[in-house]
Amino acid sequence: MLNEHSAAGPRTPRSATRGENVPTVPPAEKAAEETAVSVTALLERGRTLTTPVLRAAVDRLAPPMDTVSAYHFGWIDAAGRPTAGDGGKAVRPALALLSAEVTGASPEVGIPGAVAVELVHNFSLLHDDLMDGDEQRRHRDTVWKVHGPAQAILVGDAMFALANEVLLELGTVEAGRATRRLTTATRALIDGQAQDISYEHRDRVGVEECLEMEGNKTGALLASASSIGAVLAGADDHTADTLEKYGYHLGLAFQAVDDLLGIWGDPVSTGKQTWSDLRQRKKSLPVVAALAAGGPASERLGEILAADAKSSDFENFSEEEFAARAALIEEAGGREWTAEEARRQHTVAVEALDAVDMPDRVRAQFTALADFVVVRKR
Amino acid sequence: MLNEHSAAGPRTPRSATRGENVPTVPPAEKAAEETAVSVTALLERGRTLTTPVLRAAVDRLAPPMDTVSAYHFGWIDAAGRPTAGDGGKAVRPALALLSAEVTGASPEVGIPGAVAVELVHNFSLLHDDLMDGDEQRRHRDTVWKVHGPAQAILVGDAMFALANEVLLELGTVEAGRATRRLTTATRALIDGQAQDISYEHRDRVGVEECLEMEGNKTGALLASASSIGAVLAGADDHTADTLEKYGYHLGLAFQAVDDLLGIWGDPVSTGKQTWSDLRQRKKSLPVVAALAAGGPASERLGEILAADAKSSDFENFSEEEFAARAALIEEAGGREWTAEEARRQHTVAVEALDAVDMPDRVRAQFTALADFVVVRKR
Repeated sequence: MLNEHSAAGPRTPRSATRGENVPTVPPAEKAAEETAVSVTALLERGRTLTTPVLRAAVDRLAPPMDTVSAYHFGWIDAAGRPTAGDGGKAVRPALALLSAEVTGASPEVGIPGAVAVELVHNFSLLHDDLMDGDEQRRHRDTVWKVHGPAQAILVGDAMFALANEVLLELGTVEAGRATRRLTTATRALIDGQAQDISYEHRDRVGVEECLEMEGNKTGALLASASSIGAVLAGADDHTADTLEKYGYHLGLAFQAVDDLLGIWGDPVSTGKQTWSDLRQRKKSLPVVAALAAGGPASERLGEILAADAKSSDFENFSEEEFAARAALIEEAGGREWTAEEARRQHTVAVEALDAVDMPDRVRAQFTALADFVVVRKR
Repeated sequence: MLNEHSAAGPRTPRSATRGENVPTVPPAEKAAEETAVSVTALLERGRTLTTPVLRAAVDRLAPPMDTVSAYHFGWIDAAGRPTAGDGGKAVRPALALLSAEVTGASPEVGIPGAVAVELVHNFSLLHDDLMDGDEQRRHRDTVWKVHGPAQAILVGDAMFALANEVLLELGTVEAGRATRRLTTATRALIDGQAQDISYEHRDRVGVEECLEMEGNKTGALLASASSIGAVLAGADDHTADTLEKYGYHLGLAFQAVDDLLGIWGDPVSTGKQTWSDLRQRKKSLPVVAALAAGGPASERLGEILAADAKSSDFENFSEEEFAARAALIEEAGGREWTAEEARRQHTVAVEALDAVDMPDRVRAQFTALADFVVVRKR
């Protein structure tokens, strides 16, 4: 029933509901190892080429916004001391650089695009953490918690402006096109956050509504990341649109995996609490899918979550109580449906690439990054 | 001493410290009437041509951001009922449309620029009101007060993105240049707010620091407003830079007048409380100028404000106590210096226009708008 529901949506054509290509069945060991090496190298290249330019951009911000940004990116600690830092997975910079290579350009052409996308992504994290009241990110206190709400607002604004500046100061027609596409993605990102907030106040959210919200919150910016280097390298609209389609569906796969990790992820890997999304009463995909599935477990879950919403004691719930909710979500099929959805979206993403010519190596690397997104543990 | 101090700054050359052209001595009555009519018509034209396009742009925002925006702009009340609304003075749209005419283009060419500048201006109001904890704007509760902090952040973000979208969807080289210049101005705007916040935590702020902050907070966006129509109409960089210079100094004049109204303005006209800026302990120009002036009144003021900063009873101060502070600021010369500064900046603004050719009527209208900014009562 859930598959039918999803297949009715515009983004999940029936032909793509199986996803046999996806490495949930492990490929031959040697191939797996090569893929792993290749993805590690790609992510590392993204970080190495992007971080110095990102730091130089952030250094332009007036004090104390430069320092607050450096804290947010994990370059310094709350006392201002340099840290080794965990800048996150850096999937977006890797994609942006790779996308430049679609046209035969060097990956360096994508750097301003990678920096701009990272700035927009982190602008949204700064504001979302404040709006959502999230106190932790990447194992550290969030900016509003350390530097206050005003700095979180202000530095987010500054990063958003800086993203446009970094692109537009290139002064090329391509930079104008890239900025326009990035702006559209940013508007979608903001729409997604608006939906996310409004869903919190509702008892029921449909699977399609949840997918639309996740497409806005995660898909749109990954679409930008996957195409912006190509746009800067002068790719035509067909190529840019195709790469955006890859990135959009990759984003939906990414978010489905994120939603699984938000409930069943290992806290040591994710840096979040156990049952993190359940504690936040998040209407993530496994939850809405379980509620939409029907049947005894689904109905029981609906009753429990409705009672939880009114409970004044929710914050003191034990591990066992959250574990029981997670078990019901799984029993109702929410976990399996979400895993399947990740595979479906992965397939749509990878198949989208067929619409454009690109060097075989570049295509293989896009595929490897898509595989990585689906199998990651954090 | 204060004049020397100011004259040392880069933006207040000695030749412009007098401002004899400025209508503090009223011109012949007929001329004054003509100017008034012309400015009223210019402001009205700006509103009439810009508002429908602004409303159409805002209507694109996903619910509830469209409604929250409509409330902020004064098109509906908190219950969602349409209102006549007080959209503010609308100086910026008038300037944007007029600037298109510098090149001989029709004012309509400037409309997307006027809309973009209004969106950036209102994005900054939404975020600043929240950061500053301001509960009232234009005689109404602010957005964060009515719709909550999350909506104020989100709708501000959406307006900022929409500003870029409105320009970039024109798809022209000129739109790219306009967006780049507007982005630079927006970054300055954010720098100015960062300075404003950091100054609140300091005992003393210098006159030059205050002018720099006001140049960022007010000058940069008026510079954009005064040039963006010309940029969209294809003006060269010299013309755009000249119009920006006019707008920047007009912004400093505007802010100096605002700072005067913030202390001595008529609450009925301004829509603010009596002694509004003093109640907020704002380190505005009259205050910093009075503190920098030296002499007995200046020293006495310094002692009183230092004591006020530590007072736990400040919110219960009487009208008389604020009146006494205002009197000391005036006695120390802060009021007269600020009025003089408004005239100086007005002169620099109007004289800047000499650097470009433009139709006489357009030049006269830029001058009339500058006069209006200096003599306004709200």
